[in-house]
Amino acid sequence: MDVREGEIQGNLEADEFESQISHLALDIGGSLIKLVYFSRNNGSSIEDNGRTKHPVLGGRLHFAKFETSKINDCLEFIHSKKLHLGGFRRHEAPASDKILIKATGGGAYKFSDLIKEKLGVSLEKEEEMSCLVAGANFLLKAVHQEAFTYMDGQKEYVQIDHNDLYPYLLVNIGSGVSMIKVDSDSKFERISGTSVGGGTFWGLGRLLTRCKSFDELLELSHCGNNRVIDMLVGDIYGGLDYSKIGLSSTTIASSFGRAISDNKELEDYKPEDVARSLLRMISNNIGQISYLNALQFGLKRIFFGGFFIRGHEYTMDTISVAVNFWSKGEAKAMFLHHEGFLGAMGAFMSYENHDDGDSMNHQLVQQFPVSMAYPGRKICCSLNGNLNDNESIDCAVLQLSV
Amino acid sequence: MDVREGEIQGNLEADEFESQISHLALDIGGSLIKLVYFSRNNGSSIEDNGRTKHPVLGGRLHFAKFETSKINDCLEFIHSKKLHLGGFRRHEAPASDKILIKATGGGAYKFSDLIKEKLGVSLEKEEEMSCLVAGANFLLKAVHQEAFTYMDGQKEYVQIDHNDLYPYLLVNIGSGVSMIKVDSDSKFERISGTSVGGGTFWGLGRLLTRCKSFDELLELSHCGNNRVIDMLVGDIYGGLDYSKIGLSSTTIASSFGRAISDNKELEDYKPEDVARSLLRMISNNIGQISYLNALQFGLKRIFFGGFFIRGHEYTMDTISVAVNFWSKGEAKAMFLHHEGFLGAMGAFMSYENHDDGDSMNHQLVQQFPVSMAYPGRKICCSLNGNLNDNESIDCAVLQLSV
Repeated sequence: MDVREGEIQGNLEADEFESQISHLALDIGGSLIKLVYFSRNNGSSIEDNGRTKHPVLGGRLHFAKFETSKINDCLEFIHSKKLHLGGFRRHEAPASDKILIKATGGGAYKFSDLIKEKLGVSLEKEEEMSCLVAGANFLLKAVHQEAFTYMDGQKEYVQIDHNDLYPYLLVNIGSGVSMIKVDSDSKFERISGTSVGGGTFWGLGRLLTRCKSFDELLELSHCGNNRVIDMLVGDIYGGLDYSKIGLSSTTIASSFGRAISDNKELEDYKPEDVARSLLRMISNNIGQISYLNALQFGLKRIFFGGFFIRGHEYTMDTISVAVNFWSKGEAKAMFLHHEGFLGAMGAFMSYENHDDGDSMNHQLVQQFPVSMAYPGRKICCSLNGNLNDNESIDCAVLQLSV
Repeated sequence: MDVREGEIQGNLEADEFESQISHLALDIGGSLIKLVYFSRNNGSSIEDNGRTKHPVLGGRLHFAKFETSKINDCLEFIHSKKLHLGGFRRHEAPASDKILIKATGGGAYKFSDLIKEKLGVSLEKEEEMSCLVAGANFLLKAVHQEAFTYMDGQKEYVQIDHNDLYPYLLVNIGSGVSMIKVDSDSKFERISGTSVGGGTFWGLGRLLTRCKSFDELLELSHCGNNRVIDMLVGDIYGGLDYSKIGLSSTTIASSFGRAISDNKELEDYKPEDVARSLLRMISNNIGQISYLNALQFGLKRIFFGGFFIRGHEYTMDTISVAVNFWSKGEAKAMFLHHEGFLGAMGAFMSYENHDDGDSMNHQLVQQFPVSMAYPGRKICCSLNGNLNDNESIDCAVLQLSV
């Protein structure tokens, strides 16, 4: 099982969930199911900077993931925590269809019947790209220290100017890769993509190294040396640079190219070296294609999200170097703290579109650094403290009528 | 041994070689050594459409290749045929340094000493990109039916208008991939490239399938089914199209993505399915990056060369489909009959730059469909007959003083 679950504050009872906000949203991709859900802090409540008189419920937004192949574990998790009871209520529907859970990703279609059968709830399907964009826009605007650059071992947080965020390129690296030009809060277009993504790294990596999990494979790549298997310019030029076209002797001429001439079989290579070459090949390729697409549309900012990255330094470094190399320093790769949860976050936010006088009047507010309205939408958000991990955000929920 | 040698007409004696043209040029890449050399037809001679009074020597241009790792076999081959005696003579040099053989590719640097030791000749190094471009320009202009498109099983020859050839994008897929914008006979720039090329296909393919040769791996891919290992849009969406963004259920969402969820090890997959997925991943990726670069510079024509292709239908089809898909039908992939020999051909042609009154006065003439001067340069070429394979071209050599 490859489950990470966010910290959960307090013990949530079914009754409590049914009477209060506990929205659950799902993003069911080809490899992973991502969950975002809210839980109330036991007994705690948070002031909204004193600027509002509305009742405040303190709580946490939680982020969790499961492998899609282990969807039954995921449904068991949801059932045990009664998360499915906190969906959107459709009063006019018969009792059995009363609860709708927001869901996105292809699995929202594929597993719709299974989820109805196991949890007794229906999925309200939200379009995948809309959710990615809504999630990214929200996180970039609402969460302090959401975006950062990473290069040469240095992580630098990026201050997002809310009035100068658009346009940007959003590159979501899931099993495959989607590239979306985002022009405004509501305007976007999927302009490109590549099938060489996280599923390729994990699929090929599993076949080549026999690792048992994606994280194990990433970990392994950390201590590998790609020069063992990659053919470098120096391998072809006898240690010399190919200076005429500006390629140094350590530039990779051909990924996995040394495996052609060695009289070695797969088992003669160290799995960590294989993992490193693979990670570098895929990261570099994504960085290059992303930059070429950004260039085509004149986009200077590229944000990378999706669960392929997992905050892995070498992955981010390789993507950054690729973007920097191909753009001759003109473009910069930026990463998102909640990289893997953009789609789920977007689906979660789509609850607010249902203005049915029920729990939809609730609004999430994060309180750090300042209370902040999410422009043009009803959810507002401020952070209560520092972000320690990907897995939960302290937040406050205001019972507003907007 | 993976050696293909062109048909050789007649038995060539050392004396004959020394007294007549037998230029040899080498392109020593990371995976393959490519040879182009001229041999005279025994006793035959060919008229040059009656428009010239110069003596004519009939003969053939030959194309051969060896694996770079088996360079000793290659040198043995050259020695046994005494091809090394037909290089460029440097009269002022001491006897031992008298013969210079034109060579390009990184191996011209790396193996310079070895070749000097084994064959007693020196390599005159020609810049790699210049040779690729000179070879491509020459072949496109001089050889009938050199360029063709390939799609849906249909090969269509492209008529090259000599006055409307430039600009174009040349994509040379060797171990790695170079992308060169060609603006005129003499003006070009390497604008991009990718490390995911032929060396990746062969290197990764060897590790995954235990094939013994590149050609065996290509052959194997011919009968494989990529859907076994690739994750398709339909796999994620439960058989549905993702119509919102125009992806059909059979679009590859993630190359090798199904290998993540199956409880299968490498040996549980058929090697032919693995080979097919790999070929498709790499061909598609090259097609996409090529198109994005062509778009950036407004280039409508993309010519693909390099030994990765080897006239393999599925490879060409995938590249064509990728270019067609990403360009929405605006750009077209074209292929070159002598795809693998662009660099070697360019190096061969660089002999003409040495106007030392020796064998450099000779000029090659191909006579089909018409005698044709190679514009702005001294080599002219016409074809004597149909091209039957990659391996030799009938041609005539005129003893001209230009």
